[in-house]
Amino acid sequence: MRINKKDLLDTHTRIKPHIHNTPVLSSSLINEIVDAQLFFKCENFQKMGAFKMRGALNTVLQLSDEQKKFGVATHSSGNFAQALALSAKLQGTKAYIVMPKNASDIKKKAVKAYGGQIIECEANLDARETSLNKIVDETGAKFLHPYNDYQVIQGQGTAAMELIEEHADLDYIITPVGGGGLLAGTALAAYHFSPKTKVVAGEPLGADDAWQSLEKGELVPQTNPQTIAEGLRTSLGDKTFPIIREYVEKIVRVEEDEIVKAMRLIWERMKIIIEPSSAVAVAALLKEKKKYKGKKVGIILSGGNVDLDNLPF
Amino acid sequence: MRINKKDLLDTHTRIKPHIHNTPVLSSSLINEIVDAQLFFKCENFQKMGAFKMRGALNTVLQLSDEQKKFGVATHSSGNFAQALALSAKLQGTKAYIVMPKNASDIKKKAVKAYGGQIIECEANLDARETSLNKIVDETGAKFLHPYNDYQVIQGQGTAAMELIEEHADLDYIITPVGGGGLLAGTALAAYHFSPKTKVVAGEPLGADDAWQSLEKGELVPQTNPQTIAEGLRTSLGDKTFPIIREYVEKIVRVEEDEIVKAMRLIWERMKIIIEPSSAVAVAALLKEKKKYKGKKVGIILSGGNVDLDNLPF
Repeated sequence: MRINKKDLLDTHTRIKPHIHNTPVLSSSLINEIVDAQLFFKCENFQKMGAFKMRGALNTVLQLSDEQKKFGVATHSSGNFAQALALSAKLQGTKAYIVMPKNASDIKKKAVKAYGGQIIECEANLDARETSLNKIVDETGAKFLHPYNDYQVIQGQGTAAMELIEEHADLDYIITPVGGGGLLAGTALAAYHFSPKTKVVAGEPLGADDAWQSLEKGELVPQTNPQTIAEGLRTSLGDKTFPIIREYVEKIVRVEEDEIVKAMRLIWERMKIIIEPSSAVAVAALLKEKKKYKGKKVGIILSGGNVDLDNLPF
Repeated sequence: MRINKKDLLDTHTRIKPHIHNTPVLSSSLINEIVDAQLFFKCENFQKMGAFKMRGALNTVLQLSDEQKKFGVATHSSGNFAQALALSAKLQGTKAYIVMPKNASDIKKKAVKAYGGQIIECEANLDARETSLNKIVDETGAKFLHPYNDYQVIQGQGTAAMELIEEHADLDYIITPVGGGGLLAGTALAAYHFSPKTKVVAGEPLGADDAWQSLEKGELVPQTNPQTIAEGLRTSLGDKTFPIIREYVEKIVRVEEDEIVKAMRLIWERMKIIIEPSSAVAVAALLKEKKKYKGKKVGIILSGGNVDLDNLPF
């Protein structure tokens, strides 16, 4: 499957009326630190607080009226759960969200606030898949994968499309990478709409399956991820990996303290709230700042959903 | 002294090239909570992180070349100290800042980062004034008051001017009130540029000298203020009070827990960082939300300088 220009344009046309064209902010102080022109695409201001809204909505908007009677289902304890719940609500259908029992109350509350129905399961992959299959069988809901899905990838790519539309001549775009939906979508958007723009990703050293997969040339699943960047604990999928391998320049691994430091820099200097996963892209920028000297660099701030009772500072 | 339309327009023309025309943001969720159309003027995104930059800059830009040789001085442990230091730096002159010994390191650091020279004194009014007089005598620096100064008041009024320019038909504008510079400036801006817009202020119950002064019809100085909203612990001055008495509709007092709750609401829902003083205006809005039902309301988010190591949640 090859996602072409028209696929991306159609996707953007489809979801545009339902999402925020999020602002692109700059900070003269951070420009000085890196000695570059930086453009932060603020998906932390997106509906439900993250870019995940784009991909979720793109799938839900393409459901048939028949399918809408039965709803959608996914397993996620993160932003995709909220995004799918809100997308389903906006389109008048149901969302069943399989979540591990030990997911935090704040996450369950958020999914419920968007009208999602939570199915709790034990905190392991087997239980998750069993619960998901069961709910799909029982309800007729359609399973939607959080990232390993071309419609989701295309949806996530629209953030970079908007960034490129606003700033046509970027030398680089940096995103975080977890399952690879945002990174694959961004890489395709750059390839089709701004071919001279290179795409780089930041990844936590403690969950570096994407880096390892690129090194080895084959999918290396993530086991036992150790990082504060919750959204990036997942493994690349068989749909995201080939796109990333083909279109992404490099993946930069960052330490936990670099993530927290980058997060704090954005909070203190830009006065905006980003979650640790977003800070991974900023940390990747800072780690190799010489590379970006004098360049125009777009950074996708992927989300702003943090638990204020559990901050790393 | 009567500040007229031309004074305000001249002030805005003077400072405009040096400040950010900060964005006006909205939140559909907070609109729903209040059942009103809310427009948040984000002075937390202003240079040095607060509206104080406007007033400080307006004074420094009017210094004679002769005076610039000697610099400016003030006593402040808050945002005005940073604003004056940065304004002086931008205009190539010196800023002497008298700060109490017990001011936090983070505040001293911020003033130093902007090139301000700190003079430490004991933490009482007498020591502060003695130190200030001494430094003014020694250096020839010009004393600038943080709020009880017509040029400062006019500078602070430009935030509301920009808000009104963007949203012409506001029913209300709400600001916090401490020394009254922002409130007086806002009230004058509304009076001159949008006469149908009423101006309301939020004030901490534990530092309610402005409320008491309006009740009594004369200046009631603040003694022993008790509030998390550091920026609002000061007393009205003899220049701010008469303007507030004439042009402000009312002052709404809010409890400490209402301030923290309002702050958290803005952080969580708008993903932007505001300081407790800014949250006081939001708390005043929420406290009397029935009053604002169906109305168009501007809220000035005065600043975003918080110590991330000392958050109230």
